Amino acid sequence: MIYRQKFGEPIETQAVVNLNGVEDCSDKYLEYFKVESGSKVSLRRTLKDGVAVYGLGESTRGINKRGWSYQSFCSDDPLHTEDKRSLYGAHNFIVIAEEKPFGVFVDIPGKVDFDICFKSCDTLEILTDDRDFYLYIITGESMKDIVSQFRKIIGKSYMPPLWAMGYQQCRWSYPDEESVRKVADEHRKLEIPLDAVYLDIDYMESFKDFTVDKSKFPDLQKLTEDLKSDGIHLVPIIDAGVKIEDGYEVYEQGVENGYFCKDENGENYVTAVWPGKTMFPDFLNSEARRWFGMKYKYLTDMGIDGFWNDMNEPAIFYSEKGLEKAWANIEDKKGKNIDLYGFFDLRDSFSKLANSEDDYRAMYHDMDGKRVNHYKVHNIYGYNMTRSAAEALDEIRPNKKTLLYSRASYIGMHRCSGIWMGDNQSWWSHILLNLRMLPSLNMCGFLYTGADLGGFGGNSTRDLVLRWLALGIFNPLMRNHSALGTRNQECYNFERPQELAEMVRLRYRLIPYLYSELNKANDNYTMMFRPLAFDYPDDKFAQAVEDQLMLGDELMIAPVYEQNAIGRSVYVPEDMLLVLFDSSESFTTRKLEKGHHFIQVGLTQVPVFIKKNAVLPLCKSAISTEKLNMSEITIIGWVEDRAEYKLYTDDGISVSNKGEKLITLSAENGEVGCDSGNIRVEDGGVVFE
Amino acid sequence: MIYRQKFGEPIETQAVVNLNGVEDCSDKYLEYFKVESGSKVSLRRTLKDGVAVYGLGESTRGINKRGWSYQSFCSDDPLHTEDKRSLYGAHNFIVIAEEKPFGVFVDIPGKVDFDICFKSCDTLEILTDDRDFYLYIITGESMKDIVSQFRKIIGKSYMPPLWAMGYQQCRWSYPDEESVRKVADEHRKLEIPLDAVYLDIDYMESFKDFTVDKSKFPDLQKLTEDLKSDGIHLVPIIDAGVKIEDGYEVYEQGVENGYFCKDENGENYVTAVWPGKTMFPDFLNSEARRWFGMKYKYLTDMGIDGFWNDMNEPAIFYSEKGLEKAWANIEDKKGKNIDLYGFFDLRDSFSKLANSEDDYRAMYHDMDGKRVNHYKVHNIYGYNMTRSAAEALDEIRPNKKTLLYSRASYIGMHRCSGIWMGDNQSWWSHILLNLRMLPSLNMCGFLYTGADLGGFGGNSTRDLVLRWLALGIFNPLMRNHSALGTRNQECYNFERPQELAEMVRLRYRLIPYLYSELNKANDNYTMMFRPLAFDYPDDKFAQAVEDQLMLGDELMIAPVYEQNAIGRSVYVPEDMLLVLFDSSESFTTRKLEKGHHFIQVGLTQVPVFIKKNAVLPLCKSAISTEKLNMSEITIIGWVEDRAEYKLYTDDGISVSNKGEKLITLSAENGEVGCDSGNIRVEDGGVVFE
Repeated sequence: MIYRQKFGEPIETQAVVNLNGVEDCSDKYLEYFKVESGSKVSLRRTLKDGVAVYGLGESTRGINKRGWSYQSFCSDDPLHTEDKRSLYGAHNFIVIAEEKPFGVFVDIPGKVDFDICFKSCDTLEILTDDRDFYLYIITGESMKDIVSQFRKIIGKSYMPPLWAMGYQQCRWSYPDEESVRKVADEHRKLEIPLDAVYLDIDYMESFKDFTVDKSKFPDLQKLTEDLKSDGIHLVPIIDAGVKIEDGYEVYEQGVENGYFCKDENGENYVTAVWPGKTMFPDFLNSEARRWFGMKYKYLTDMGIDGFWNDMNEPAIFYSEKGLEKAWANIEDKKGKNIDLYGFFDLRDSFSKLANSEDDYRAMYHDMDGKRVNHYKVHNIYGYNMTRSAAEALDEIRPNKKTLLYSRASYIGMHRCSGIWMGDNQSWWSHILLNLRMLPSLNMCGFLYTGADLGGFGGNSTRDLVLRWLALGIFNPLMRNHSALGTRNQECYNFERPQELAEMVRLRYRLIPYLYSELNKANDNYTMMFRPLAFDYPDDKFAQAVEDQLMLGDELMIAPVYEQNAIGRSVYVPEDMLLVLFDSSESFTTRKLEKGHHFIQVGLTQVPVFIKKNAVLPLCKSAISTEKLNMSEITIIGWVEDRAEYKLYTDDGISVSNKGEKLITLSAENGEVGCDSGNIRVEDGGVVFE
Repeated sequence: MIYRQKFGEPIETQAVVNLNGVEDCSDKYLEYFKVESGSKVSLRRTLKDGVAVYGLGESTRGINKRGWSYQSFCSDDPLHTEDKRSLYGAHNFIVIAEEKPFGVFVDIPGKVDFDICFKSCDTLEILTDDRDFYLYIITGESMKDIVSQFRKIIGKSYMPPLWAMGYQQCRWSYPDEESVRKVADEHRKLEIPLDAVYLDIDYMESFKDFTVDKSKFPDLQKLTEDLKSDGIHLVPIIDAGVKIEDGYEVYEQGVENGYFCKDENGENYVTAVWPGKTMFPDFLNSEARRWFGMKYKYLTDMGIDGFWNDMNEPAIFYSEKGLEKAWANIEDKKGKNIDLYGFFDLRDSFSKLANSEDDYRAMYHDMDGKRVNHYKVHNIYGYNMTRSAAEALDEIRPNKKTLLYSRASYIGMHRCSGIWMGDNQSWWSHILLNLRMLPSLNMCGFLYTGADLGGFGGNSTRDLVLRWLALGIFNPLMRNHSALGTRNQECYNFERPQELAEMVRLRYRLIPYLYSELNKANDNYTMMFRPLAFDYPDDKFAQAVEDQLMLGDELMIAPVYEQNAIGRSVYVPEDMLLVLFDSSESFTTRKLEKGHHFIQVGLTQVPVFIKKNAVLPLCKSAISTEKLNMSEITIIGWVEDRAEYKLYTDDGISVSNKGEKLITLSAENGEVGCDSGNIRVEDGGVVFE
């Protein structure tokens, strides 16, 4: 059951698109929260010891969010330490795991705080920054049911093309055609599967969207075509800010048509990002949105069929006004004997200019006739940039799937694109953060997602990349990405690259299962990745597990995320078959009883836990997804009592081209069949009992 | 066996004080390392897969240091993320756990890199910043033996007074007498044991060392006496930098006698720290050292008997010259349309002024007649500041123990004082970092140490403080400390403070064991805290354990360090008795067989693992150490085959006043005795078999 409560005059975020079965009610929420209302609205509830809280999509810390104060406010902050309150997305959905669990969605385009037993160790407080929002309360028979109901009202998720399930290689930046070709060549040479190479900001002319620096990429169309003929897609970045430069078409059209955000006096609001002085398209205006979206045609015309939208929180390095203020602030310090507080002030004058709330408060939108301050709608800006692209790409490439994902996001954007988990670090702890975000994001509709494998900022090590790949092979978006000035972390840059290649090859073997489960989760409004607590709500050990996930209907994963570890402790919540892959082709199996186990996992091994009576379908590996033969499936499992397994199929190109492959499992005679012939059993792979 | 190799003309750090049995040799090191020598010296060795490397004292990451590149260069950096290469101390001792393990100590007062399989996954490289140093290679029959030999040549460690084993409460800052008294009162009111309250930088007049701001502390002597009569010691901070201010005695004496560090022209070198413009005493000069040390008398005369030395890396906010350069650098940017790289440059001009290498290179010492550039001796500056205090305090308070510890350090300083682990954060991961530094520091002679419990920077939560206390009760230095602007994290500021109080009370019960083991480790050159790998070198599971420690001869500890956890996996390397304390008084026991176990540990519980045939002696708790009755001991254990247990005793006041209490264990009739009467067996506490 879903109850909706309207507070004030909410701005429609279009997060919710299906109000079927949603009951508007005036008092229901008072059964759940103590409410205090002023310029903000506070919703408070006492939580018993041990009651977990799930959700908040892209955020720091645990799967269970209890014990911290989070803030939904799209933020460009690359240092994801555990004390951070905000990351790039704003995902205001939580599920409170009380005896009768319930979900809460706060649909507000501005800031909202979720104090989950931080100030007081037994109090949940949701504090909205203004009084205009919708509050949804969702009850149901289980956490899975509650999530499913929520997902229904926010609508189906973006589904990527099949090639986007392949391995993708990125760096800030492969600066020219030669480097891009080298990345492709090195992968092909070592037979490391690869489906995409990325272009970060340096492919553009002076960081101008929808331009290509001809001195570095003399013929981008040819490059795109050449790579594609080898199964490799080129994926350029698009930034939110538009460079101010006379003669630059995008800038001039934007000014001419009034498509940019304004300051309080109605003048174009000047900020600075990569290109120096920029203006931000007003993505909350439908005309501006369509105008900007159609610009992607410049690149699709060259054969490009994948994009990532960045800096759309929006990230602001400084505003013209902010910089002026900073100069004024330091003016009187020069030549004086400045004391420490004076020095800190001096230092912070410039270093605190970026992403300042003052700048967000000084910016205005024209929401189709209604003037709205940016601060109030901050969290839906990136969403609408990506919506702009998604809607236009549907028009430009009708009935075709495009790879598209964004850094900033809000619930609703999940219908337009995926997200990546932002600019993480080459930290071991960020392997775990990657894992923990997966189910939280799934709850909020973001199914196509993944973290920068190997870590974006900082220097990676070979063992870190190996262990991260061993989780990354399960991320729907499997991308290795690293920042300017850091160590090169492409697989071929490490010793014994074939060991890294084997990880990637195993990924390709898993694609039938992963793509099937991804599509299934979308069709059925379920979560591809789930905390163990969702599947085993009465198991106290399962509830507390923060480093394992259920993956689809058949598997559990439990990666190693500690340096120099020889394995890890795993909680097995029901009898399972441990499949330990030594390489993409060879593996051993071991039956595990429900309980705690220490599992040895070498640096080049991947453990997969298949539930009893579940099966894992695998195809053969290939150097790109287009070379995959997904009609030839082998299976691994421990089957006692199961008759069939249904594999969802999809051609991965058209927007809707789905099917099913039914695999019949016969326990009696060890035979496995499917509706289109026999299925191979991986050597030693299935234990029929 | 210890081999010493002299390279160039080393500056004597006085890390090593006992050359008995040290063999000077010209070639031995070539059996261990490939050497390349230029302006720097590189020592390289290939390490087999799985070979662990231990040591480096205070540093980030694991107990096993393999997989990162560390740098010994005393650094004031409060953000101890896993990518950091340097912290406050420089501890150049490692043990390489090959089949025939060996130790390496690089005795150099300047910078040195330890690339432990970072650049290449199988190569250890030690790279010294210059060519003047001693290299020690230590072979032995075990890692424990190697450490023991090393500890012998660097000499005995600082031992604190008994009261320094009590609970200590700090904050930046308790700004006045009233707040200090309140901290004491709140502890006493709730019967939370407490032995010390700290004065951070704000007790001084304008941050001037050896002054007291009378407007805030009108009578420090009376305050000190009042608190001491209640068993509470007041511990003020001393900073390395001396404020430049006419009429300020310390400054004027220093100038008059030429006791400050100089610039390249021989002028006093001007930098800025807390008080604004400052000069650094030249602690490498013996006269300056004695002069500064004797200044502590100003405070000991008021009854103060404990100090912490801070900012002695030295931390520099900016130098006069650096600031001038920064101004010049931004000069031409004003009013121009600065692009992004220009903006970054602008921003960094001020923000990168702190602790710059340029400033260190511009500073000079007079090492008793020899002019030495600071950069070359950077790592022994803090050491000599603390040596200055230690030597003077021996003179000022003869034969009495003083609490003294430092932030910056080098091996050798362990003879003068303890260290704390610097400005950590209120992060769960820093509980683990606290644990991991303990054995590494013990290897280097630092026995009296601990981390800021609850975390210094950032906001803490009640559960974080509880879980950290549960490790903190084993830290020799048990101090709760938090930074300006963060949440108050004194035990009494949280809900249900009695649960936190019980943790502290349990600490006091452990003091006989902890103080005994601390002194024993010092007398016998052993490690109070050891990686499991040191005690069970042939056990592959023990080798990989990164979150448990052996504590003294009897115990193993394995704290919970994850939020919302209900327990943790523990590897038990031999049969042990799990003692799970529910409070300071009540506990349950459970025999555990060697192997992996999942142990449930509630938020207010403390697990202790007693080896079979080992015993844990406990006294009754008290509100301060002076109220402890350590002659009344009760014991817990699982005894099958052991006749006696020896407890080291010490009055904790005089520098040498040691004894032993012999406890005889009788398995036959469940009786326990000692040389001075019977010992109580804690109810249900001993299992005789």
